[in-house]
Amino acid sequence: MAASSSAPEVPPPRPIELALAEARAAAARGEVPVGAVVTDAAGTALGRAGNRVEELHDASAHAELLALRQAATARGEPRLPDCTLTVTLEPCPMCAQAASFFRVRRVVFGAYDPKGGGVEHGARIFAAPSCHHVPEVVGGVRERECGEALRAFFAQRRGG
Amino acid sequence: MAASSSAPEVPPPRPIELALAEARAAAARGEVPVGAVVTDAAGTALGRAGNRVEELHDASAHAELLALRQAATARGEPRLPDCTLTVTLEPCPMCAQAASFFRVRRVVFGAYDPKGGGVEHGARIFAAPSCHHVPEVVGGVRERECGEALRAFFAQRRGG
Repeated sequence: MAASSSAPEVPPPRPIELALAEARAAAARGEVPVGAVVTDAAGTALGRAGNRVEELHDASAHAELLALRQAATARGEPRLPDCTLTVTLEPCPMCAQAASFFRVRRVVFGAYDPKGGGVEHGARIFAAPSCHHVPEVVGGVRERECGEALRAFFAQRRGG
Repeated sequence: MAASSSAPEVPPPRPIELALAEARAAAARGEVPVGAVVTDAAGTALGRAGNRVEELHDASAHAELLALRQAATARGEPRLPDCTLTVTLEPCPMCAQAASFFRVRRVVFGAYDPKGGGVEHGARIFAAPSCHHVPEVVGGVRERECGEALRAFFAQRRGG
């Protein structure tokens, strides 16, 4: 079929842009500004979330875990083998292990996290021989912009 | 005050017994039989759960995460610094990292898990220099009984 000529084609937002929007919304709620989105093979967002640790009184309410659970609920399946998890910050060990349990195909992240990350740093979850499912990993996507949201948040917290 | 003499004192069940009961209930639901309980300094159970991965379509619905979230919700606080997490199996890296994020004082577990554990095996979450909060760890409590529930479950699954 020919594309309609009546309107210019507007590409859908890329997953990292959706994740950045979630990070900014989290900052506005006073949460650490990390955002995540889970997309299927067609690029449709099945889950998207920002951190909600303080709001939910839940230290495990990281953006990634919330988005993964949302996507799995939407599917009615505890595994998401065709899906990509896109997140503004390198996942911590908890969320990296969760991504493996949900069997996502790919993990894409923005800023690297030398202190708290568990993919390229620290526990390096996917490199453990006992990790049953190892997703493809792409780091450093829109790295500067993803890190900037975090830097601004913590500078403001310190009264900077 | 003197204790009543009309009834013998019945000590409350130990946390590992509550966790074992949750593991058995999980097996009856067709879930991997792991159970967990979160108790406060007085020994009161604030959260208790068994695995609900299949029921909730949630690959992160491990007993520990569910019990920790329940306890934090009951408290209205995302951190549980006076609490003990007791679980029938060595926590995986996801749940070990969550226990650190919830800042529990102590992690007690039953059976060791050389394949999937993340405390004494694999990622050894609490040993990472980047782990901000390291709970006291006591492993091997009622080890044989905790492991037996798992062995029976997997033997039955294999049609044994």
